[in-house]
Amino acid sequence: MPALTPPSRLLFGPGPSQVEARVYEAMSKPLVGYLDPFLYQVFDDVRDGLRAVFGTKNPYTLAIPGTGSAGMETAVTNFVDSGAKLAIFVNGFFCERIAEMGRRHGAQVVRAEKPWGEVFTQEEARAFLEKERPQVVAFVHGETSTGVMQAPEAITRPAHEAGALVIADCVTTLGSVPIRVDETGIDIAYSCTQKGLSAPPGLSPFTVSPRAVERLAARTTPNSVWYLDLKLLMDYYDGKKYHHTPPVSTFYALREALAAIMEEGVEQRFARHLKAHRSFVQRIEAMGLKMHVAEGKRLTTLNTPRVPEGVDDASVRKQLLDEYGIEIAGGFGPLAGKIFRIGVMGPLATDPNLELFFEAFGKCLTVHAAA
Amino acid sequence: MPALTPPSRLLFGPGPSQVEARVYEAMSKPLVGYLDPFLYQVFDDVRDGLRAVFGTKNPYTLAIPGTGSAGMETAVTNFVDSGAKLAIFVNGFFCERIAEMGRRHGAQVVRAEKPWGEVFTQEEARAFLEKERPQVVAFVHGETSTGVMQAPEAITRPAHEAGALVIADCVTTLGSVPIRVDETGIDIAYSCTQKGLSAPPGLSPFTVSPRAVERLAARTTPNSVWYLDLKLLMDYYDGKKYHHTPPVSTFYALREALAAIMEEGVEQRFARHLKAHRSFVQRIEAMGLKMHVAEGKRLTTLNTPRVPEGVDDASVRKQLLDEYGIEIAGGFGPLAGKIFRIGVMGPLATDPNLELFFEAFGKCLTVHAAA
Repeated sequence: MPALTPPSRLLFGPGPSQVEARVYEAMSKPLVGYLDPFLYQVFDDVRDGLRAVFGTKNPYTLAIPGTGSAGMETAVTNFVDSGAKLAIFVNGFFCERIAEMGRRHGAQVVRAEKPWGEVFTQEEARAFLEKERPQVVAFVHGETSTGVMQAPEAITRPAHEAGALVIADCVTTLGSVPIRVDETGIDIAYSCTQKGLSAPPGLSPFTVSPRAVERLAARTTPNSVWYLDLKLLMDYYDGKKYHHTPPVSTFYALREALAAIMEEGVEQRFARHLKAHRSFVQRIEAMGLKMHVAEGKRLTTLNTPRVPEGVDDASVRKQLLDEYGIEIAGGFGPLAGKIFRIGVMGPLATDPNLELFFEAFGKCLTVHAAA
Repeated sequence: MPALTPPSRLLFGPGPSQVEARVYEAMSKPLVGYLDPFLYQVFDDVRDGLRAVFGTKNPYTLAIPGTGSAGMETAVTNFVDSGAKLAIFVNGFFCERIAEMGRRHGAQVVRAEKPWGEVFTQEEARAFLEKERPQVVAFVHGETSTGVMQAPEAITRPAHEAGALVIADCVTTLGSVPIRVDETGIDIAYSCTQKGLSAPPGLSPFTVSPRAVERLAARTTPNSVWYLDLKLLMDYYDGKKYHHTPPVSTFYALREALAAIMEEGVEQRFARHLKAHRSFVQRIEAMGLKMHVAEGKRLTTLNTPRVPEGVDDASVRKQLLDEYGIEIAGGFGPLAGKIFRIGVMGPLATDPNLELFFEAFGKCLTVHAAA
């Protein structure tokens, strides 16, 4: 096999997003064993950093040894007992995935539905939850399939009134958008490392509120998935008992990505991403294109402009990748061919990088509009 | 947070084991997206390399996005339907873990038991399986808790006679010990990246025989774990349908570790490890120590000499780590305090490295024998 020589990409897709050199460097540092005191320092740093970006004091904060979808499965399998009622707010692809996992774990899944690209109001959520009285509620904070951001309080307040725990999918928001877990009352939040945190994929940040921990402790049946059993995972990360051998190098990377975020300042980082998003929208509108999602409901880290009439989005994406090394994504499901999905995250959320992106994007659009 | 500066360890424990510079380098190469054509080349290289080390032509060969225990859970959840009979050959810690996963997934678990450190003969296996007639049989090829290697044929032949599929845990053998999946008739084998393959932890190599694929295709209930659903995973790795965002950097590392193995030659690598094991045993016996496992039944990549009478193994291990930067492990369960667990894998499986190890080990033993 010849040497590994990945092409150099500018990752403007929905993730994995661009990673800084210092994070790659951290990942190439020597491994230590799964009980090494040094690794436990890394775990502590990671826990501190994750608390800062989640906006929580939850002691129960960790990173699950799998990708973001492993975090989703961890949330479902630990908090949805077989037979429990799970209410899901469905307005995109990833809410469907939660529903699918709920069904597989034997939950009674009930759904509130909206078209892809819309959000739920507190009144709508309240009406639904008062009727259904579920034990657990799930929603997606930043829907990667549509570019929508759901305000957490619209869900958490009526859910708590109904006595339910709230699971929030923060896969596309953590690290670049405020979540404020404690303030908004999210009980269980999970994410990934490869979007807003600007680290490589492979871990799923996770946090659990004290009331959800109580619910977990009261659970009498073991959850069906040993690998994702939160009690066993926490015992290992607390240094009490061996569970699995963690992806050490990926922990190094996550730790370094979080260190970079702390250096920049969490609030400063959020502000930089918001500014980049606004600049993105301005440029899109200046080109005569339209955003799919209404203002005020947009996921600021993943933008979804509509594909102009008569343009084949796959050709635009292919040219961007082949000629400019720029990755963006297309829509899928009901939005296939109708939107572009363009991530502006981490080191790419700056004006010079947007400049660079729009130059290439504009050229490719022109070519394929003319064709 | 200060810069990340892991201590430099010589990893003579049960894993993670030592990783070569070229693998670390590969991991620090730039990420590409989860649908990037380059990533699919990496997947192909990984698949080819895994087939060579597993000793199989199985088309269904891949790496699961989690650690070795995720591979174990994948085997159990995909091939053990709720209510199915799962027979386990129990002679150590990791067989117990398979049994635990089986119970959680609703299987009817039956056990053949032996003391920690012994193996099963074909006659013993046949008697047990003829009586039990299970649908699925599981055993551990190399038991990390005891240092025992179970001959696969002793299990696979009687299992096939009884019409059962065979799951083999190859976590501590893949890449450094021959498994010969096709020849021995193993149906489902899983492993990790961080032992015999000399890559960092984070992926679980996995292979499935055509007859097991048939059984999987005939399954009518979806398995309960979406994240570890083999059908969905294979569709993604075959380029048919998105499932999760894989740990790209860990795939780079695994690909490079496999490239290094191909360069050395798979059989040459196996021979080098066997030679290092023999040299290890000679040196141990020359010191007057005894191996816990009888000759001919030893796991050649993880050696388990007995702790000499009057020596506190924890003190020896601590001094080795603190003064020499050498990691080894102790026994646990019924073998706590009774054995050392010393891995001789990958770049450390050479005479100069053994020389270095034994100099430090001898000194620490002398100090703590005198104390």
